[in-house]
Amino acid sequence: MSRFWSKTVRELKPYVPGEQPKVPNLIKLNTNENPYGPSPRVLEALRTEAADTLRLYPDPNADRLKEAVAAYYGVHPNQVFAANGSDEALAHAFQGLLKHADPLLFPDITYSFYPVYCGLYGITYETVPLTDDFDIDLEDYLRPNGGVVFANPNAPTGRLMPLSVIEAFLIRNTTSVVVVDEAYIDFGGETAVPLVARYPNLLVIQTLSKSRSLAGLRVGFAVGSPELIEALERIKNSFNSYPLDRFAIAGAVAAMEDQDHFDRTRQTVIRTREALTAALRGMGFTVLPSAANFVFARHPKWDAAVLAGRLREKGILVRHFQGHRIDQFIRISIGTDEETVQLSQALIHILEDR
Amino acid sequence: MSRFWSKTVRELKPYVPGEQPKVPNLIKLNTNENPYGPSPRVLEALRTEAADTLRLYPDPNADRLKEAVAAYYGVHPNQVFAANGSDEALAHAFQGLLKHADPLLFPDITYSFYPVYCGLYGITYETVPLTDDFDIDLEDYLRPNGGVVFANPNAPTGRLMPLSVIEAFLIRNTTSVVVVDEAYIDFGGETAVPLVARYPNLLVIQTLSKSRSLAGLRVGFAVGSPELIEALERIKNSFNSYPLDRFAIAGAVAAMEDQDHFDRTRQTVIRTREALTAALRGMGFTVLPSAANFVFARHPKWDAAVLAGRLREKGILVRHFQGHRIDQFIRISIGTDEETVQLSQALIHILEDR
Repeated sequence: MSRFWSKTVRELKPYVPGEQPKVPNLIKLNTNENPYGPSPRVLEALRTEAADTLRLYPDPNADRLKEAVAAYYGVHPNQVFAANGSDEALAHAFQGLLKHADPLLFPDITYSFYPVYCGLYGITYETVPLTDDFDIDLEDYLRPNGGVVFANPNAPTGRLMPLSVIEAFLIRNTTSVVVVDEAYIDFGGETAVPLVARYPNLLVIQTLSKSRSLAGLRVGFAVGSPELIEALERIKNSFNSYPLDRFAIAGAVAAMEDQDHFDRTRQTVIRTREALTAALRGMGFTVLPSAANFVFARHPKWDAAVLAGRLREKGILVRHFQGHRIDQFIRISIGTDEETVQLSQALIHILEDR
Repeated sequence: MSRFWSKTVRELKPYVPGEQPKVPNLIKLNTNENPYGPSPRVLEALRTEAADTLRLYPDPNADRLKEAVAAYYGVHPNQVFAANGSDEALAHAFQGLLKHADPLLFPDITYSFYPVYCGLYGITYETVPLTDDFDIDLEDYLRPNGGVVFANPNAPTGRLMPLSVIEAFLIRNTTSVVVVDEAYIDFGGETAVPLVARYPNLLVIQTLSKSRSLAGLRVGFAVGSPELIEALERIKNSFNSYPLDRFAIAGAVAAMEDQDHFDRTRQTVIRTREALTAALRGMGFTVLPSAANFVFARHPKWDAAVLAGRLREKGILVRHFQGHRIDQFIRISIGTDEETVQLSQALIHILEDR
């Protein structure tokens, strides 16, 4: 603690991201990265950017990217906000749209960055418990609130809410902003973007880190009514004029345009997820049904932290979260089929060892 | 204005960056970009990053970059903070180190983003007038304050303060943070980084956008005592775990390591600046002595906005700022020698036309 720190810094509890080890040859199933690389067309577009033009600023508005997202979803570019990763889009949404007199509501078990943003911007919030089945029940959010944010599919559970349930909530919650964080939507869910046309208080946030295999490029975006997007633009233009570099813009545009690569890789991830879920259940795990590129599982006879530690000894990283109701689960990202086989073999050995 | 906007958004006055035209063949002397491209070693490092590894997150701590900056300046990596452009480093410094009960102090004429950050984070500030010669007089800042921030060389004036003057101020201003924004220091000034060892309240911020020719890559950094750096890390880890993508880290490391390219290009820019200054004075302009990669000039017989407009008609962009005391100046970025000749010829024609 330093006398030079502002009150905000003194009170902050920063987010802790999953480990990014510098040890080679680990099987990395801890941060929900895509096991398959980005589209060859993305790599080609990126190589073109390694040129003298780097001396020039990128387009501060990333118009090409907004147009590509707008074309993909059939919306207008002024309904799209581009950011340096979806975390940045979320941060601006918290500061610009979710800070009001009434408390912000989000699930007790969800992306653990949400309460951190509240600390950063001094936002009052209340958490709403998931059901016993680890589902979000939006009926529980029908009370005075300054905003609602949830992930769909939710993290780290992987549980999906159907669009009809989200729309039923939007019909009744009209006076505050509802942010749907769709980081994992492409692995089995239906996006809420089409609802944006009817609900001016709906903001949908997505990332290119997962289903577009570009975690290393840092691009996310938000889709919403022009009035919500304008709020994000005002924050962005008061924070950093050029948040997306030339590589991020060019690579993201190419990624939004290659439908074939996108469909092929995400279908493969989905198939592997279903196979892994069956395998884990065969070993006695309870596995929550997942619509994401990870599964959330617990074993009745194993402490989750111990299990994660044993996997790490065998060179396999999975994620374990401290926290009420989830500390007996491990979250396993979906890798390649080969990685999944190695994970299953390692688990079989560990379970036999007991 | 929308009922969904937070109070912060409603009251914001966003920064307006210099125009980034999409029209080709303009001579672009309006945003202080380097006329020379980055080092070939940078481009080589960047091409290597266009690979399948983009599916993986970058190092959230950008350790390689911190080590490269630390090696360059002979400090410890825990004295270095890396950011998505120096604007992001500045934003975090405002929120984490410059928000206190006493007002933040900065010059009335300086980087116009400073008051915008104050609006974004609710920071009380007072501006301190430059002298009649457009210099910063740090004696004027020796009063109760919650922090001090200034650019050295200052923008848009280009005026430089010697290090001895900054140190004399630090000896007397010990209870608040002093941020020196050195975006342009490599074009003729002496960095304050060596003072960091003696003054735990000093934070020096630099960018790779100007002297390293990487405006399109978005990389900046801060150097300070570990306690100041920790404040920035706490903000960063509460905002965005991975602000620098894989290209930004790899390209910036290579740029910090290529001393030859750096020295050669900045020396050329300095020579061109001195030649342009002489040429402008020959045409009757008053030109402030500049230590940056731009000059700030006014002509006794021409309204600056009109002059900037006439140059634009001839395909040459310069920057004109509205604002007390500076609205009769134009700011001209230093281009190549050829661009500078074309600028001079255009100005001669315009001045003769009158």
